[in-house]
Formats: sequence, C-alpha cells, structure tokens
Amino acid sequence: MPPVPDAATPADPAQLLSALIRCPSVTPAEGGALALLESVLAPAGFMVSRPVFREAGTPDVENLFATIGSGAPHLVFAGHTDVVPPGDPARWSHGPFAGDIADGFVHGRGAVDMKGGIAAFVAAALGYLADRGGAPSGTISLLITGDEEGPSVNGTVKLLDWAAKNGHRFDAAIVGEPTNPKRLGDAIKVGRRGSLSGRITVFGRQGHVAYPHLAINPIPQLTKLIRRVTAEALDEGSERFDPSNLEFVGLDVDNTAWNVIPAEASARFNIRFNDQWTVATLEAWLAARLDEAAGNEIAYELELMEGASESFLTHSAELIDSLTNAVEAVTGRRPELSTSGGTSDARFIKDYCPVVEFGLVGETMHQVDERAAVEDLVALTAIYRRFLDDWFG
Amino acid sequence: MPPVPDAATPADPAQLLSALIRCPSVTPAEGGALALLESVLAPAGFMVSRPVFREAGTPDVENLFATIGSGAPHLVFAGHTDVVPPGDPARWSHGPFAGDIADGFVHGRGAVDMKGGIAAFVAAALGYLADRGGAPSGTISLLITGDEEGPSVNGTVKLLDWAAKNGHRFDAAIVGEPTNPKRLGDAIKVGRRGSLSGRITVFGRQGHVAYPHLAINPIPQLTKLIRRVTAEALDEGSERFDPSNLEFVGLDVDNTAWNVIPAEASARFNIRFNDQWTVATLEAWLAARLDEAAGNEIAYELELMEGASESFLTHSAELIDSLTNAVEAVTGRRPELSTSGGTSDARFIKDYCPVVEFGLVGETMHQVDERAAVEDLVALTAIYRRFLDDWFG
Ligand SMILES: [Zn+2]
Ligand SMILES: [Zn+2]
Repeated sequence: MPPVPDAATPADPAQLLSALIRCPSVTPAEGGALALLESVLAPAGFMVSRPVFREAGTPDVENLFATIGSGAPHLVFAGHTDVVPPGDPARWSHGPFAGDIADGFVHGRGAVDMKGGIAAFVAAALGYLADRGGAPSGTISLLITGDEEGPSVNGTVKLLDWAAKNGHRFDAAIVGEPTNPKRLGDAIKVGRRGSLSGRITVFGRQGHVAYPHLAINPIPQLTKLIRRVTAEALDEGSERFDPSNLEFVGLDVDNTAWNVIPAEASARFNIRFNDQWTVATLEAWLAARLDEAAGNEIAYELELMEGASESFLTHSAELIDSLTNAVEAVTGRRPELSTSGGTSDARFIKDYCPVVEFGLVGETMHQVDERAAVEDLVALTAIYRRFLDDWFG
Repeated sequence: MPPVPDAATPADPAQLLSALIRCPSVTPAEGGALALLESVLAPAGFMVSRPVFREAGTPDVENLFATIGSGAPHLVFAGHTDVVPPGDPARWSHGPFAGDIADGFVHGRGAVDMKGGIAAFVAAALGYLADRGGAPSGTISLLITGDEEGPSVNGTVKLLDWAAKNGHRFDAAIVGEPTNPKRLGDAIKVGRRGSLSGRITVFGRQGHVAYPHLAINPIPQLTKLIRRVTAEALDEGSERFDPSNLEFVGLDVDNTAWNVIPAEASARFNIRFNDQWTVATLEAWLAARLDEAAGNEIAYELELMEGASESFLTHSAELIDSLTNAVEAVTGRRPELSTSGGTSDARFIKDYCPVVEFGLVGETMHQVDERAAVEDLVALTAIYRRFLDDWFG
C-alpha cells in the first residue's frame, strides 16, 4: 500500500490520487477525503474552510473551500471528492478503495471522476506556489464539494453562495471533470446543454372495457401527443452545440387490471437543449404542439419539473486560449471545444465567472475497474501548471 | 330482522334473498350461503352435493350442485353466491349484509348480482315441484359456484366437468345474472362477446439521455405500434353483436430516472370481440398491423394472455322462445336478444349445452346500496316458473 503523502511530497499526483481513493467517500460520506486535502493544502499556506450544508430531506454534506493569495486575478479550481458506489467489489480487478498503483494505472472508484482531476490541480498549484516562493500573483482557490453525484443540493450551489458572501469574486474557473472521450487532449468543455424534465398527463374517464362508450381511454390520446412532439427535430445544432433532443423516459398508468380503462395516463420526458433555446421557449414550443394535437378532444396537462438548467457557452477567449495552448503544448494535440454530454456543476459556476472543464479520460468513469493512467495524471498536472504560468503571467 | 326461511316458506323469493344476503359470502368465502341453499333444497327432494375445488395459487372454493328428477329434458339453473366486497359499510343506507327489506326493496350486497336471481329460480323450481307433487317431467339441476367474482378457477369450469363425470347431460341452461339495464324485461342475453388480453413489448437499448445516439428509445416506437392498431375499427358489429373493440388498459416502463432512456416499454390491451372473430384471427390481424408498423426498425413481441374466451351465440329457438314468451307474458314487454356487456360463466356453460341469461335489473350491481325491488323478485320468479311450465310441457 502506498504511503499517505505528506507536505514534503505533495507534488506527486499519482500518490495523492491513491491516498484519495483510499478514502471511501461514496456520496454523501466525506470518507476522509476532505480531511486529507486539508492536510495537504494547509501546510502550503492555504486558508481552508470546511462548511457543512444542510437541507430538510437531504443528507448533510461536508464541503471544502481553500484559498491562497489576494486580489485579482482570481482563479478557482472546482471539483468533487464524492464518488458513485462501486457495486460488488468482487467484480473489480483491484479493490475499489485500495488505491493500488499497478501496470501504469492508479486503480479505484473515483480515479477519473474525479479524484484524479483534484490530485492533478492540487499538485499543479502546489508546484506553482513552491516555485514562486509560496504566493500567487493574485488568488488561487479550490472549491470542492461532496455532493455532485448525489442530490447536488448541499454542494456547489451553496458553496458558491457561501464564497460570495465571504467576499470571494472569481475571474475564471476550471472544473476537473473527465472531459476526454478517448485520449488526454481530446476535448475541453466550454459549455453545456440545458436540461428540462417534464410530464404530460392525459385525463380520460375510467370505465369497464366491456362498456367503452361510457369511458374515455387516455392511452391512445397520450400516444397521439407523444407522436406529435417527437414528429420533428427541435433544431439541427449550432456552431458549438449538438442538436437539441427530447427523449421520453417513462410511461405511467395506475392500473393493474385487464378489464378497466384507466382514468389517467402520463409520460415523462427530458430535453437536452442548446443555446437556441431557453426553458421558456421550450415550454412554448411544447404547448403549441400539444394544443394542436389535443384540439378539443384531449384533456391534458403539461408539468415542468423543478431543477431545470439553461444551456450556457463560455466566451472568455483568455480562459479558453490559455487552456487550449497548455493542452497542445503538453499533449501535442489541439483539443476540440465541446459542449456535449451530461450536466456538471459548471452549470452553477457559470453564474459567477467564465468556466471551462478539462480533466482525465472518462472511459472508465462510473464503471467497474475505474482507473487513471499515471502518465495521464502527470500530463494533466503539467497542463494545469502551464495554464497557471500563462494565465497569471 | 326477517326470519331465516324454512322448508315451509321456501317460495317467497324476497325472504330467501334476505337470508342469502345475511351470509357474508365475499369471494372466496362460502359465508353460509351454500349451506342455506342446501337446507332449502334437500327437504324438497333435491340431491345436493357440495364439492370443494382446489388449485395451487388460488383459494379453495366451495360449490353446490343440486338435482331432482331423472332423464331428459334436463334443465340447469346456474349462478354464483359469491359477491364483491361492499367497501366501507358506513356509506350504505342499509347494512350490506343486514338483508333489510324496506321501501319495497331487499337491500344488500349481492341483491341483484346474483343472490336475487338464485332466490327467484329456487322459489320458481320449488313452486313448480310442489304443484307437480314433487317430481319434474325430466331433470332440474342447480349449478351454484362461489368463485365467479374471483379468479373463476375453482368454480363453474370444474363444477361442469365434475357434473359431466357424474353422468349429467344438460339440454339447456339459464344463468340468473342481472341482464336488464333499466327495467325487468329489457333483455335476455343469448351470447357473449369473446375476450382476449395481450401485451405488446418493444425492446430498445438503454442509455443516458445525454447520449441518445448510443441508445434506442422504445417509447416512441411503442406509441407507433399503439397508433397503428387503434387506427381502424375491427368491424361494424353484426346482427346480434356490437362492434368488436380493442382497449389499451396499461403502459409499463420500468424506469424511475429522468436521465435514462429505458430498455423496454410495453402496453397491455383487452379486446372484446364478436362472432366475426376468433382468438386466432385476431392474433393474425394484430400481427399483420404490428409487423407493418414495426418494419425493420422496431423489435417487438406480441404476447397473448392465458384465459382468453371465444365469442358465442346460442341458436336454440326452443330455449330462447320459451324464455322470451315467459318474459313477455309476465312483464308485457318483449325482451331484446342481447350479447353486450362483460363476460359471465355462460362462456363455460356454452360448451355443454345451449345457454341464455336472464335475471334482475343490473343498475346497482357492484355498487353501494345494491338492492332488488321486491316486485321484480316476484315477477322474475313468475317468469322462471312460466318457463318451467312451458319448456317441460
Ligand atoms: Zn464527476
Ligand atoms: Zn354476477
């Protein structure tokens, strides 16, 4: 088992990642991961805060905010130490929380999503500070949550608010989520699609199948509404974005009998949408098509769920160019500027400052035998370091 | 509370019904109802058997078979003493198992479905036998089950088989189910539509909504199949039958997440069909349309459920005319020869002999405050009696 790193050897990202993996921080457990980060950051001069956020109906969550330096420019590295459950440990080649370093990889749950990204930006920041004699030319902060894979209620949203109330004003943020599909250097994420979930419910009239004239069957009516909103594409995509897309994810009818026409039928959907849309314009688009298909025949309700997020695109050339150049200098490859894939906490950070995402190769994330190449950890650390030199310089 | 009738007063159908209602025979409980019938029938000379039928996975059920006389012609009255649950007794004006006779009605669960029909045909048969000095000119049997409102597994099907194995050959059957929509004399049922239940399952490929190109969403595909089979009517009806009709009764998707495209989606349906169809021709009709809509794009499975029943139409002019004339003689109204409505145990009896159904007014069946008019009970008894005189005469 590798040793826990101390302040004397903080700059080895593979050792730091191994130590972080050994902290079993399945959401919402802290698992020792934030304490480990504090033990590495505080000796290097960071002011470390560990705010715990609470909300009724959700577990309490520990978070970490560390900052060093003062004034502008203010860069924040963001990430999460919580991980998804490993499933059956017997299916893993290396224990999911053993932190084994073998065959050129650091093995374990969270290796790429995203303790590896954290290890790399901590190592890069400590190296940068050591070379400058301990102080940045501005401010470097780390914003680490333990609630990214869970409800995301007691994490980044509240931590950003907490930081703002404590006087922190960020100029740029880098999120260390895995952004590369296959090889380090594939892609920087410069935005995210928005996400909107909703439910369409059709109200019929319950009855017996033998007496259909006394009932109104909501199921064929619901299928008519579904067909209408899936009949056409939302758009063809835009310069930086894939086409927007609507997917139905569930159908719900509260009836187990075979001889009863049910009273209601509903369908659940999710839309991932690009910068040509907002939640408001999507609602109008849906309502127009549903109204058209419903006519006077179908009684329906369109309900939008809480927690929708708008799409965003980061326009800061300074931030994007510095990171792109750093990636190219280290990997020899010019990364794609991507907006594809799922949501991340960047959707919250974008309300405070320009934000981009760059981290490890995501192939094994959330899977059995999640692992990060030591070579990639070293290269990612070098990329973050080059970015610090360039962006602060 | 009215007295339990004894052999001295068996011919009052309202008293007999009241006593039957006081037996709380919610399926599968016997509740004393069959014992009461035995105590009335045996003293009149009936040979009474009380076979109990069993099958794994279903409750044991008590049944009753009573027979008097010998040889042809052999008439069987069929029915069930089990009743559906009353729900909250506080919602009833009279206790659901009190058997109150008030305001010209016998009140309680099962009054019309169908302890009232049983009370009327028992009273009619006893009156007929008494007037003839105790013996019919042929055979009269009563075939009473306690499993009509339940799974219908340990009831009429097994009782018919049991009777056949014991040498009974029926020439005609009358089922005492409520057949009149509004007034006694509205309708005799001379057939039933068939019933077929099935499930259509579409197989997609599970995935994340953010990566729809890696998944195949089965929900829009299922709606396409549903739209195809509901796009046209099965038929326009025939001389004695309503149009056949397909109703979807359920939609099932095993997914509670909002960001997951599910692997499968299925729809459950029931078809009530007339004499233009069989289960086999319906299956072919469905498969042709589903295949056409599926093309090479949609992977689906059509599954037909156990327990389908074919439609049937009784052609015995002797049986139908005798009953029609008896109804008209007593009520002054010529009943419609109907095949509408749900299924009944007549669908099993028709494999043994011509069968028709005639009973009370069904308006209050399965509802709170179920009740039978004393006037209707007396008239129904007179109708059955007139039928006996005519059919045996
Ligand atoms: Zn992550
Ligand atoms: Zn019934």
